Amino acid sequence: MRAAVYHGPGDVRVEDRERPTIAAPTDAVVRVTHTAVCGSDLWFYRGERDREVGSAVGHEPMGVVEAVGDEVRSVDVGDRVFAPFLASCGACEFCRKGLHTSCVNGASWGGANGGAQGEYVRSPHADGTLVRVPDRHADDEATLRALLPLTDVMGTGHHAVVSAGVTAGATCVVFGDGAVGLCSVLAARRLGAERIVAVGHHADRLELAAEFGATETVLARGEAAVERTRELTDGGANHVAECVGGAALDDAVAAARPGGTVGYVGVPTEPFDVGAAFSKNVALRGGIAPVRAYADELMADVLGGTLDPSPVFTHTVALEDVPEGYRLMDEREAIKVLVEV
Amino acid sequence: MRAAVYHGPGDVRVEDRERPTIAAPTDAVVRVTHTAVCGSDLWFYRGERDREVGSAVGHEPMGVVEAVGDEVRSVDVGDRVFAPFLASCGACEFCRKGLHTSCVNGASWGGANGGAQGEYVRSPHADGTLVRVPDRHADDEATLRALLPLTDVMGTGHHAVVSAGVTAGATCVVFGDGAVGLCSVLAARRLGAERIVAVGHHADRLELAAEFGATETVLARGEAAVERTRELTDGGANHVAECVGGAALDDAVAAARPGGTVGYVGVPTEPFDVGAAFSKNVALRGGIAPVRAYADELMADVLGGTLDPSPVFTHTVALEDVPEGYRLMDEREAIKVLVEV
Repeated sequence: MRAAVYHGPGDVRVEDRERPTIAAPTDAVVRVTHTAVCGSDLWFYRGERDREVGSAVGHEPMGVVEAVGDEVRSVDVGDRVFAPFLASCGACEFCRKGLHTSCVNGASWGGANGGAQGEYVRSPHADGTLVRVPDRHADDEATLRALLPLTDVMGTGHHAVVSAGVTAGATCVVFGDGAVGLCSVLAARRLGAERIVAVGHHADRLELAAEFGATETVLARGEAAVERTRELTDGGANHVAECVGGAALDDAVAAARPGGTVGYVGVPTEPFDVGAAFSKNVALRGGIAPVRAYADELMADVLGGTLDPSPVFTHTVALEDVPEGYRLMDEREAIKVLVEV
Repeated sequence: MRAAVYHGPGDVRVEDRERPTIAAPTDAVVRVTHTAVCGSDLWFYRGERDREVGSAVGHEPMGVVEAVGDEVRSVDVGDRVFAPFLASCGACEFCRKGLHTSCVNGASWGGANGGAQGEYVRSPHADGTLVRVPDRHADDEATLRALLPLTDVMGTGHHAVVSAGVTAGATCVVFGDGAVGLCSVLAARRLGAERIVAVGHHADRLELAAEFGATETVLARGEAAVERTRELTDGGANHVAECVGGAALDDAVAAARPGGTVGYVGVPTEPFDVGAAFSKNVALRGGIAPVRAYADELMADVLGGTLDPSPVFTHTVALEDVPEGYRLMDEREAIKVLVEV
C-alpha cells in the first residue's frame, strides 16, 4: 500500500509500505478514504519534537472496514467508520468515565498499526476505537467531510469549552484561530454561549470564527489581546478556552475573571505562572482531549445538520500530495488540509 | 497601644503604636483578645518576602468591638467578633459569589488599620469583614480557641478540599502536615470523605492528622511520597488537596488520578510543570482562600461541637512574647502559636 512516512524535519514522503493485517481478535483493518494533516503533525515536521525516521504518519482516519477480528462486535466489513487520534478500549475505568485518552489499553496510530495518512490502518480495540457512521449517511461526501474533524480538532475544541464550563448564556473567550480554536467557537455556540469572543492574529480566520458564531473578534496577540478581551468583558471572562498552547495559557489566565475557569487544550510548552491563577482563584481544566467521548453526540448534530466544522478544511490534496499538504499547513496557507486517499 | 512590628528578617518587636480610630462610617475598631502567628508570617520573618520595616504584623484578629462607624449595621460595641486575613465589603460581585479574596473593596491588615498582633485593629467594611460570635458563646474560652483558626488556616484547609471536589464517600490525599494541611484533613472528614491519606514529614503532626480523621498517613516527601500515595490509591486519587506550596504542586498532580482534581492553597513559588496535568486531564482549582465565605458554616459546626481545629495551637504566648511565638514557628517547635492579647 501507499503511505506517508517521516524522513526528518520538512521531509515527509509517500512510499510503499506493508499493509497492516489483523493481529489480535479485537483488531479491525480499515481502508482509509479520508484523513487530514494536523497542526500537531507540524511539531515533528518542524523538528520541534523527535520522531522515529521511517515511521508512518497521520492520526485522523476515516474509511471503510476491510476486515475484523473474531471478537469485534460493533463494526463489520463494509461499514463506514472514523476514529480518534488515539485508540481506546472503551471498557476500562477511564473510558467508562469519558477519559479515553487515559485508557489503560490505549494505543497510537503509526508503527505496526500504520499511519492514517496511508491506504490502510489497523485499529486496535476496534469496538472501543471505531465510530460507525450510520449507513444512510455513509456515502454522502459532504457529511463525511463534516464528520472528519470529529477525529481530532472538533472534539478537541469541544473539550476546551466543556472544560471551561461553558453552558447556555455564558460569555466565553476563545484564544486561537487555528482549526481547534475555530471548532471551539462552534462548540461554544452549540452549548448556547451568548457571547463568544474569538482571539487570533489572522483576519481571514477570524472571519470564519464570526461565521462559526463568534459575536466579537480580537485581532491581536499577547498583552494587547489580553487587554482588549478584558475591556470587552469588563475585567475578564468567566470562561476562557485556550486553543493555542505554549505561552498562551498565561494570556488565558490573564483574560479570565476572578473565580473563572480556563479550559485548555493547547499543549503547554512554556513554564507557566501558576501564581496568576492562584491570586484570583482561576481554575485550570482540560488537557489532551478525549475526543472518543464526544464522538457520538457531535456526530448526532452533524447528521442532524446543526453542526458543520468542514469549513476548517481550506485545502484538499490526494494521498500522493501529502507532502504538499504539510507545506500548506507549515506556511499557514491552509487552516487544515483534508487528504483524499 | 502595644503592637508587634516588623524590623527586618528575624526581628519582630512589641512596641507602642498609635491606636487606630474610626476613619470611615463603615469602619469598626476591635480590641483584639486573641490572635495567632501564621506560617505565612514566616515569609517576611525569614526574609523570603519583602515587607516594609516598621509595619505592624498579624492578620488573624479576634476580639471585642470597641467602636463602630455610623453606617455599620451588623455588629455593635461589645460584640465578640473575628475576621479573615483580608477585609472585604460583602456586597460586590465577587463577595456575592463567595470569592471575598477578589473583593473590589478589599483591604489588608497592617498599615493604618493596625496589625492583628496588637491591642487594636480598625476593620474596614466592618459589615462585610467581621463575623459576629453569638452572645451565648462569646466568652467561652474553649469555643474562642476553636473559632480562631477560622480567620485563616481552617478556612484555607476547607478551601483546598472544596476546590479538590471532595464530597461524601471520596478518597482524598492531603499534602502537608502544617496547620493548613491538618485543617484540610478535618475539612475532608467533615465533608464525608471515606479515605483520607495525609502526607507529611513530621511523625507527631501526622499523629494529629490521624486524630483529625486521616485514615492513612504517609511519612515521606517528594517522589517517595508520590509513589506511596499512588500505591495506596491504586494509581492516584481523584481528589488531592495541596497545602504546602512551592514544588509540592507537582507532587500533588503526580499523585492525582487521571481526570482527578487538585485543590491547591499552598502558594506556588516554583515553575510548575503544567504538562503533567495536561497529559492526564488533572484539573487545578483553588488559590488564595476566601475564608470569609466559609466562616458562617464552619462556625455553626464549631458552636455545634462537631468541629474543633484548636489542637493546631500547640503553643500559647502573651502579646509581649510574640517574638518568641515567631521563633517557635520558625524552628517548627510549634504547629501554630496562639497569642493572648
